[in-house]
Parts: sequence; C-alpha cells; structure tokens
Amino acid sequence: MSNGGGGAGASSSTHLLDLLEEPIPGVGTYDDFHTIDWVREKCKDRERHRKINSKKKESAWEFTKSLYDAWSGWLVVTLTGLASGALAGVIDIAADWLNDLKEGVCLSAMWFNHEQCCWDSNETTFAERDKCPQWKTWAELILGQAEGPGSYIMNYFMFTFWALSFAFLAVSLVKVFAPYACGSGIPEIKTILSGFIIRGYLGKWTLMIKTITLVLAVASGLSLGKEGPLVHVACCCGNIFSYLFPKYSKNEAKKREVLSAASAAGVSVAFGAPIGGVLFSLEEVSYYFPLKTLWRSFFAALVAAFVLRSINPFGNSRLVLFYVEYHTPWYLFELFPFILLGVFGGLWGAFFIRANIAWCRRRKSTRFGKYPVLEVITVAAITAIVAFPNPYTRQNTSELIKELFTDCGPLESSQLCQYRSQMNGSQAYPAGSDAAAAPGVYSAMWQLSLALVFKIIMTIFTFGLKVRKQCFSVVISLCGRRLHHAGTLCHGGRCPSSASSLTGGLEYIVPLMAAVMTSKWVGDAFGREGIYEAHIRLNGYPFLDAKEEFTHTTLARDVMRPRRNDTPLAVLTQDDMTLAELQNIISETSYNGFPVIVSKESQRLVGFALRRDITIAIENARRKQEGIMLNSRVYFTQHAPTLPADSPRPLKLRSILDMSPFTVTDHTPMEIVVDIFRKLGLRQCLVTHNGRLLGIITKKDILRHMAQMANQDPESIMFN
Amino acid sequence: MSNGGGGAGASSSTHLLDLLEEPIPGVGTYDDFHTIDWVREKCKDRERHRKINSKKKESAWEFTKSLYDAWSGWLVVTLTGLASGALAGVIDIAADWLNDLKEGVCLSAMWFNHEQCCWDSNETTFAERDKCPQWKTWAELILGQAEGPGSYIMNYFMFTFWALSFAFLAVSLVKVFAPYACGSGIPEIKTILSGFIIRGYLGKWTLMIKTITLVLAVASGLSLGKEGPLVHVACCCGNIFSYLFPKYSKNEAKKREVLSAASAAGVSVAFGAPIGGVLFSLEEVSYYFPLKTLWRSFFAALVAAFVLRSINPFGNSRLVLFYVEYHTPWYLFELFPFILLGVFGGLWGAFFIRANIAWCRRRKSTRFGKYPVLEVITVAAITAIVAFPNPYTRQNTSELIKELFTDCGPLESSQLCQYRSQMNGSQAYPAGSDAAAAPGVYSAMWQLSLALVFKIIMTIFTFGLKVRKQCFSVVISLCGRRLHHAGTLCHGGRCPSSASSLTGGLEYIVPLMAAVMTSKWVGDAFGREGIYEAHIRLNGYPFLDAKEEFTHTTLARDVMRPRRNDTPLAVLTQDDMTLAELQNIISETSYNGFPVIVSKESQRLVGFALRRDITIAIENARRKQEGIMLNSRVYFTQHAPTLPADSPRPLKLRSILDMSPFTVTDHTPMEIVVDIFRKLGLRQCLVTHNGRLLGIITKKDILRHMAQMANQDPESIMFN
Repeated sequence: MSNGGGGAGASSSTHLLDLLEEPIPGVGTYDDFHTIDWVREKCKDRERHRKINSKKKESAWEFTKSLYDAWSGWLVVTLTGLASGALAGVIDIAADWLNDLKEGVCLSAMWFNHEQCCWDSNETTFAERDKCPQWKTWAELILGQAEGPGSYIMNYFMFTFWALSFAFLAVSLVKVFAPYACGSGIPEIKTILSGFIIRGYLGKWTLMIKTITLVLAVASGLSLGKEGPLVHVACCCGNIFSYLFPKYSKNEAKKREVLSAASAAGVSVAFGAPIGGVLFSLEEVSYYFPLKTLWRSFFAALVAAFVLRSINPFGNSRLVLFYVEYHTPWYLFELFPFILLGVFGGLWGAFFIRANIAWCRRRKSTRFGKYPVLEVITVAAITAIVAFPNPYTRQNTSELIKELFTDCGPLESSQLCQYRSQMNGSQAYPAGSDAAAAPGVYSAMWQLSLALVFKIIMTIFTFGLKVRKQCFSVVISLCGRRLHHAGTLCHGGRCPSSASSLTGGLEYIVPLMAAVMTSKWVGDAFGREGIYEAHIRLNGYPFLDAKEEFTHTTLARDVMRPRRNDTPLAVLTQDDMTLAELQNIISETSYNGFPVIVSKESQRLVGFALRRDITIAIENARRKQEGIMLNSRVYFTQHAPTLPADSPRPLKLRSILDMSPFTVTDHTPMEIVVDIFRKLGLRQCLVTHNGRLLGIITKKDILRHMAQMANQDPESIMFN
Repeated sequence: MSNGGGGAGASSSTHLLDLLEEPIPGVGTYDDFHTIDWVREKCKDRERHRKINSKKKESAWEFTKSLYDAWSGWLVVTLTGLASGALAGVIDIAADWLNDLKEGVCLSAMWFNHEQCCWDSNETTFAERDKCPQWKTWAELILGQAEGPGSYIMNYFMFTFWALSFAFLAVSLVKVFAPYACGSGIPEIKTILSGFIIRGYLGKWTLMIKTITLVLAVASGLSLGKEGPLVHVACCCGNIFSYLFPKYSKNEAKKREVLSAASAAGVSVAFGAPIGGVLFSLEEVSYYFPLKTLWRSFFAALVAAFVLRSINPFGNSRLVLFYVEYHTPWYLFELFPFILLGVFGGLWGAFFIRANIAWCRRRKSTRFGKYPVLEVITVAAITAIVAFPNPYTRQNTSELIKELFTDCGPLESSQLCQYRSQMNGSQAYPAGSDAAAAPGVYSAMWQLSLALVFKIIMTIFTFGLKVRKQCFSVVISLCGRRLHHAGTLCHGGRCPSSASSLTGGLEYIVPLMAAVMTSKWVGDAFGREGIYEAHIRLNGYPFLDAKEEFTHTTLARDVMRPRRNDTPLAVLTQDDMTLAELQNIISETSYNGFPVIVSKESQRLVGFALRRDITIAIENARRKQEGIMLNSRVYFTQHAPTLPADSPRPLKLRSILDMSPFTVTDHTPMEIVVDIFRKLGLRQCLVTHNGRLLGIITKKDILRHMAQMANQDPESIMFN
C-alpha cells in the first residue's frame, strides 16, 4: 500500500484532519471569481483554534501567541476603526478645501478653505461674515472686480472649469490605476461578503485611488453619496489590516467577519451614526452576521466615529452631520406632512431604482458605455453649469444640509431666516414672535424646489450607485426644513426656538418613524428589490439574497443537473479508475467538483472532490512520488484496492475527499434547498433518490433557476 | 388500488402538497413539551401564502382576505405594542401606589400616591414639599403623632407588614392560579422561541396573574427587575393577539416571529428604550430573527414606548427611566473610573451568576425548595426589615435611580445636593461655584454604599431571575452618581449644571462604551454563559444555544443512535410491513419518528414518518375506510405493492411520509451537525454511510452529547 500523496495513515480522523495533518500546498484555497465554502472555512478555523489551545500550555511563547490570537479580533477592528475614521476626516477636509477652490482662494494661506480663511476677519457683522479681504473669488483675482456681469461669468466659468478638471482627474485615475475603485462599491462588497472572491477589490491600490477620487468627485459637485465609497474605503482598511493576523488572512470566512465590522465603521463615519452604521451593516451589507460580530461592529463603528469627531472636519465637534436642535413638542396633525413625506420618499425610491437601472442597462447595451470618461465629463459639466446659478446647489451637500437643519437665530444669515429679520427692523431675531414670512423666504423655497428637482435628475444619471433605496436622508433633509416651515406657519408662526428643554432625544422618533415606515411600505409596494440588489443582478454577480423569499413550488429534481436530455453526471468511482481516466474527465468537463461513488452500478455516494484540489494533488504526487503513471489506479478509499501484480503504484486521493457532502433528496422543495444554501453558505449540494446519487445543484443553478422563475435571462448569471 | 387515507392521487407534488390537499385532522400539530420542526412550519406557511395569492383574483372577498393576511403581521405587532405599553403603564402606576401604601395613605383621596397627594399642597418651600397635611403616615393615623421613637417603630412595623402581605398575596396567587407566572420567564421564553412547545405558558391566565403579581412583588420591595416579567407579559399579549390571525395562530414558526417582536416591546417598556429593546431581543431572546422581524420588532417597541409615554406613569413625560441631562464634556482621565466601573460590573455579573445558580441548585436539591411560600415570605421580611432604616433602600428602585440621575439644582431637596446649599446660606444653588462637600453628602455616600451591598446580597437570594449577566444598568445607576461626584470633586468642584448645550447626545457614548466593553470582557473571562442560559441549563430545557461554539472533534457517528451495543435502529420498510407489525414497532418503542427504508437488505433511505402522524393516520383510516385489518399491508410508495388475491385492503401512508428528511454522513464533524441543527431548526437528522442508513441524531442527542463533553450529567436534559 502506498503511503504517499498526503495520506493520513490509519488515523480515524475526518477528511479535514487528513487535510490539515499533511497539507498539500494550495489545497483549500480558492481561485479568483469563485465562491468560498463557508462550512469548510469554519471547520478550518475551529481546527486552528483547537491547535492553538492545545499548545498554549507548552511554553510562555505559545501562551503569548494564543493571547495574541484571542485578541486579534478586537485589535483588527480597532485598527480598522482608527484608519476609517482618520481617512474619513482627511477626505472631508480635503473635499471641503477643493470645493471652495471652485469659487476662489485664500490669499493669506492657500491651504485654508473659505470658512477658515475668514476666521481672522475683522468684519464682525453677521451679514458680512462670509466676506473677508483675504478670500478672493476668481473674478476678483483675474478681473480685479467683485461685482457685475463680467465677474459673474468669470466665476461661473472657473466654477465649471474646476469641476470638470476634478471629474477628469478622478475618472482618469480610476481608469489608469485601479479599475476596481469605480462606483459605489457596495454591490461588490455585498457579493464579497456573501462568499465570493474578487482579488484586489479591497487592496491597497484600490484604497489609495478610491480615497483620492472620492475627494475629487465630491469636490467636483457630482451628485453622489459618500456612504458607498466610505464603506469601500473602510473595507479596504479592514482587509489590509487583516493581513497582520493569520487568523483572518488565512481564512476567507473569518476575513468576512472583519469586513462586516469595517462596513459598519464606514457607514458610521459617513453619517456620524455608530448605531445606525451597525444596523445598516446588519441589514444591507452583511451576509453572515454571527452575534460576536455585532459587538465588534459596534466597537469599530464607535472608534471610527470617535476619531472623526476628534479630527472635527465640520468644525462643530459633533459626530453627527444632521444634528437637530429642535425641542418643540410635535402635534398629532403634524403626522400628516410626515406621512406625505414618507409617501414621497417611497415613490422617489421606487422611481429612482427603476430609472437608474434602466439608464445603466442602456449604458451597458448601447455605445454610451464605450466612452466612460466622456460620460463622466459630460455629467460633471451639466452638473456644474446647472448648479452654479442656484445657491442651494452651488454649495456642497453637507453645507446645504447644515443650513437646512439649523434653527433660525440671530447668528443666521440664511435667506430662509429672512422672514423674521424683515419684520422687526432693528431686532434681528425676536424670540417667540409671530413673524410672517418675507419675500426672501418664498424665493428661497422656490430655489430649494429647483434644487430638489435638479438633484433628483442628476442622481439618476451620475455614474455608479449613490443612494439607498429608501433614500430617507436626502429627501428628508431636502424637504425637512420646508415642511417644518410649513408646519410652523400653519400653527401661527409659533417659533421653534422657543423650545423648552423638557423633551428627550426620543421626542421626534414617532413622526420620523411614521415617515420611514410609510416610505418603506410605499417602496415595497413597487418592488422589494433594493438599489444594491438591483445592481448586483444587473452585473450578474453570484449573490443569493438572504431577504428575497423563494415562493415557487419547484422541487430539487427540477433544478438539479443533469436534466433529462443532458449528458450523464460526471462522477468518479472510489477505487476503479486510472489516472488517465481521471485526467480525461477533468479535461473534458469544466465542473468545479465531482461526486465520488462506490460503483457505477450502485450509485451510492461516498463524497465529493473539488477539481482544483484534484489537479493540485495529482501535480504534487507526480512531483514527489515515483512510479505514478497514466495507468496508475486512483483510489479514494482508506485502503488500496487489490491490484494485479504488474500494475503501477496506485495514487491515494482520500485526503482531498470531502466525506461529508451535503445531500438532499430529489423530492425536497426548492424553498428548503434555497434556505439551506443561504443559511449554511453552501457552494453545491448533491441530490439523491432512495439513497442513490441522481444529480447536483450548485449555487449558480439556483440563481439561474430563480432568474428563470422571474422571467429573466438565466444566462445573465456570470460567475460560479 | 385504494385511494383512501389521504392519498394525493397521481399528482407529482411533494409530500407537503399531499399533506395539504387532503389533510388528516391533527397531522402537522405538536404535543405539549415537544420541539417544532421549523422547516416543515415554514413550508406550511409558504404553501398557505401561495394558496391565498392564487385565489385573490377570484373575488373581492378573497382579495380583501389576502389584504388582511398581508397586513396581519403589522396589525398583530401594533396590537401587541399597544397592549404591552398600556399594561406597563398600569403596572407602574399600581406599583407606585401600593409602594406608597407601605408608608401611609392620602386622606383626601385614597387612590392618590404620595406625590399626587401633595400636588395641591400649599407648602411651597422645597424642603417641605414632601410633607403635606393630606398625606398621613401610619404612625400619624394610628398613634396620632408624626415624630418620636414610637411612631418610627409603628411606621417600621406597618412597612414590614404591608411588604409581607404583598409578597404573600403574590406567591399565593401564583401557586393557586397560574404556576407558569412565577419567575422571570425569560429562560422559558428563550426556550419557546427556540421552538419548544409549553402550552399555557403564554396564555390569558398567566398574563392576568403575572400582571397582578408583578405589581405586588415590586410594591413589596423585593429586589427584582421588571424587564423579565414585562417581557413575559408582552409575549402573552403577542400570543393572545396572534389567535386573531390564522396566519400566526396555526403556525408555530410564524407565531414565534410575533413573540420576538413582543419581547422587544417588553424590554422597550421596561427601560423606555425602543432601540435597546430591539437589540436585547436580537441578542438575548430571539432564536430565529429574520430581517422582516427587525422592522416589526422596532415598530412594536416604538408603539409600546409611545403608549407608555402617553400614560406618563413617572409624571415627567419621558420615555426613558434613566434620563440623563448632563452636558458637561468629559475628560480623558475620567475614562479610568468608568473602566473601573466596568471591571466592577463584570466581576459582579460573574459573581452574581455563580452565586445565584449555586443558591438555586441548593434550593432544588435540599428541603429549602419544598416550602416556596415560606421562602418568599422570609426573603420579603428580611428585605423589608433591612430596607426601612436606609432611605435609599426604602424608596423603590425607580425613585432611587431618578434621585441618583438628577442634577443638583435649586429644586433639589436630596441629601446628595447638600454640599451646595450649605455653603451659600441664602442662595440655594450657586451656579458654577466651587462648592465643597458638606457632611450631608458623606452620610449619603455611606448610606448609598450600604444600599449597594444590601441590593447585591438580596438580588442573589430573591426568587426567580432578576438581573442580566452584564447587569450594567443597576450597577451604573447605583455607582454613577458617586462617580460623578468623585469626578466633580476631582476637578475642583466644577459644577455639572453649568453645561453648555454644544454637545450632542453621543457625548457620553465613549466613556459608557468603555465601561460596557470592560464589563463584557471581564465577565467573559469568568465564563461566557449568561444568567438566562445558566437557568435554562439548570432547568434542563431543550435549548440549543446559538452563541455557544461547539469546539470538540467528535463526528456524527460518535453521537448517533444506535450505539455499538444498542438494539438496532427501529425502521419501517416502504412496502412489506403489515399494520400489526407497524403497530408493534410503535408500541414497543418510544421514539418520536421512524426512518422508512426501501428494504432491510439495501438500507436505502426513502423518508421519515413521525410517530404522532402514523398514529393519527391509522386511527383516521380505521374510522373512515372499511376493510383495514391487522394483516393489511402498509405501504409508503406511490403505488400499492402487488399482493396475493386474498389479502385485505392495504393502507397507503404516503401522505404522512416526509420525503425530504435531512441526512448527514457518518463522517460529518459534529460542529457542522450542530450548526445545521441551529440554523435550520431541525428536530432530527438521519446518518448515512455510503448511501446506507446507519442511525439517527436528535436534538436531545446533541444536547446530551454537549453536556457530556462539558463533564455534566447528560441525563439533566429533560425533554425532547
């Protein structure tokens, strides 16, 4: 009997123990664009854990190693949180500076943005505080005059010029250096978290280019949300730091735990909301979310938010971008505008998804898609040209939101607050007065409505993915102020700043939740698919959605391969094949794995062997063992079969045999099969009938079947 | 060929379709103290959903029914939230009134508690506001004097008398009317949510008695938390309301979705924290938590909190019991006391669990457990006697927490605030002054420390389960004020009320999370088992913890039955058994189900039949079909076997056959098997080797095996 080829000797252990005791290099790893086997990865990790635990009493060094191993989870999420928070702060500051560069420069110090430039200004009246001698608009610099149509046109031109330059630089950087840095990134990250391998998608190059292009894209005024790119940046950090810890770098399943926590950190810094980040990660991004990750995600989100607050990019020492200081109690009738807002939000979400997907499909199928640089430049140019005349679209989104959310007060120079100062002449802000609206407010409302329409249109056409399906934040922030004004005017100009401080932070949760719930219901009525899922489907990623319910009555036998007219299933027998026959099967088919059976007659299932593992094991045996020839017998059993005396040395492949493949019967409803695939993270499952092997179902088969059931093209599923 | 016995004719459908097309009454239901089959329940629900969907275009009535069905999920959680919030409000008000009854009565209106009684009082100075002529202590009523040792003793006596009466009434009510109403309820609810059936545990009787006893127990001063009983009350509401909706009443898996949401509502009203309620439900209570339930849980929690706020039991129109109004920024060195607090909390949690479990085990095994009424009375007596002299233990916990959390201000008469009023004579509250502590503060600190020690000891001995493992809230609330004072005194008496309003609500999240994280880590170092899991284990409930990792290297064949020396597996063959043989197997064994195989020789698996279903089907056939005799052939195949001409009519049992039983191979590592059981909610799983049936693994087998691996008594697992 041969003892070569990675055999595990006479041990009674499982295939996994076999695998780990004498590992063949490369067995157990994955090819690019393949799906991982969650069960196998988890077993590998537990085995590693057991090894470290059993060794830790041997020496102080081993004990230190075990401690390092036990804490590496917390360490890696801490590092990820620190890095994500720091990067988010740098991005905010840089984008702010570049954004102001579109309007002018600070003469005293080039690296100051408009606000910082005017901090030292002597102009102390509030109306004048934005004007200071150090800050020069481009018209002032080039033409030497601040007012008049000539300077307006010059400012307009420079604004558009800079926006185009930023957009061109961003798209060129992506195209030349890191194609993976394009787009929102969340559909791809969802797919990666569900177990797909895309090498380089979360690498250091992607991180660098994504960070720079995010700054440029935000500064260019393109209508895009930061949460997608920031989640991508945070996941890159998580992936890079996980290479410091063998527990995570060598295990694809464990690495995805870090990525889950990283995506929570990313959302946390995008919105300044740690708890929101965890919930977003839980609901939208994560696939496997063991409860252990919940604590770590929360921790990462918190660290990231804390670092961001310490950097203080908004200059208000607040974590939250949308910080509300209203304390007025709300009245029951105010629920109606909130619910209307929810209806509008839901309709907008459903409309946005359809319009965006239709546009992206068109881009994919027609010649629009062939000139991506030109497309971005065009979108940036239109954005800049249309945005400049309207003050609410000229400023960047975070400034707009800040203005919309701030209470009117004596320090407020916004046009939206004019109705008070107009009424009372000398006193800029009469607390609690019954002020009526001045014309300034109506013109502001009008501009704001134009801004809303503009944002809606541009967001659909802007490349990549920007907004969540239930895009509450944008819509609420754009409409919130108007509604509030409407509400205020309704009950007699009751001043929102005369707030008592009786009410807690939960004061507004009821109207907000009413809006959010309505929005969700309205959106769901038009289709449950979110924008990320829609883009996953558009791109054909192999993503098995955990939320979408499988509602058809098909059975496993309707989905499994081979179908009635197909060639029979490619199987291996456990002890009567030669190496030539095995290599023949491998070269003639393109399957990723083969069931191993007792014999062709009985069709009783023994196990499952992966194509990659077989190829590696054969190469390894050829290199290391002598006497392996084409007519060598290949066997997967514990003991070598009895062979004729003159036969060449047989090849034992038991070590690569998965002896616990998942099986279902042919009568199993597909809803159960889909459930098993989702919950256990399977790659394939074998189908039996009365104990005999009938066929195989892969994740790709399921995705194709689901596409077929939804009357879509099953061939749109690209990868396996 | 017979077509009786619920046969599905020639349809190509699954066993489930068979089951539903001609249902035998009773098939598909469960016995008390049995575990449900999640997969089967889910399939049943999807089948029901498909039926409604296909019918809905038939008539307006069917369409209305389908709308009702679609909205019933939201309706039932709304009703549950409303009821839970209302009950929590009633409980708070009643407990408050009864608690004040221990000290005295309101002469003007018996139904007023102390605070309400003194609202109309003319005494307007703050020191005197708790004293008003309408409110009489028992000493004033009985002895006619308010001061002096006699009246103190009389008050002391009445305080103890009422506490004992309440405790006696509570324990008697539970004992006589609803034994299920005892204890915290959370271990049982966790077990129910994991798929166990305990009839009556969430019924209307339990609800009624639990509500009354919770009021009595809180009023008697027993050291117990409200969150457990409130979760139980909310789950009772959820269970009762689910009977209005066939979607939930007829499906045990769907019913558990409602219970998940209900438990979130329960925690929400216990702490006034809707988001906290959802997270608690997610982390501590729920077993299956599909994301659909996340929205509904949040909604239920929100509705409950809103109703509670509208009832306003604490008279401060706040949702939150622990409402903090501090706005002072914190300093980095203040993290140290917070971390120390976390260490203390973790140590206390670990110590509490061990001490409480040791005490409960002692009670179970010795004669202490035989006199539960006496035990409760004793604990209540000791609590009352020790509690009265100390003002911080005499008042109820919510009042104590309120006092601890309130900022010192001119309205504050608390001893803890004395150090300011002492210093400045005339002015009661000098804002921002550098006040030093007066003797009153030190005596308050001393009493507070005594209160802490007392609470620690009494909580361990008080019956039932009271505190979560990471019992942050109590410890933090007990220590928080002291720490804050310590911190305040440290940096020079800096007044916490001189707060600016710059800081957001997330101001304290970093020190709080530092304390919580430290507490978790310290607690985990002493064992990961929470108090609820410990009590589940103590009571032997069949609960497969989703959080505890299975770390052993055993294989399925080491756990499956039959073992080497056992009697062979009881199996049924698909078409060559008589009714007598089948009844013989059923009567001779006590298994809950039997594998069906092709033949004894091949041992190839066909399906699985449940004992309960077989019994019901045989009875049904005997009643409805003629010619069924003891020597009738029983068959599970699609077509009847060919029989001799004189044989009696055969009995077809295919409709009760589960043709998609879960199977694993004998080489499957147990960690995978445990994972499958947890994630899919299985009741049993069959074990095969090379396509032949070898044995069976049930949930009970797994729990026994895990107990054995942890060196515990495997016979402690009581139910199956």
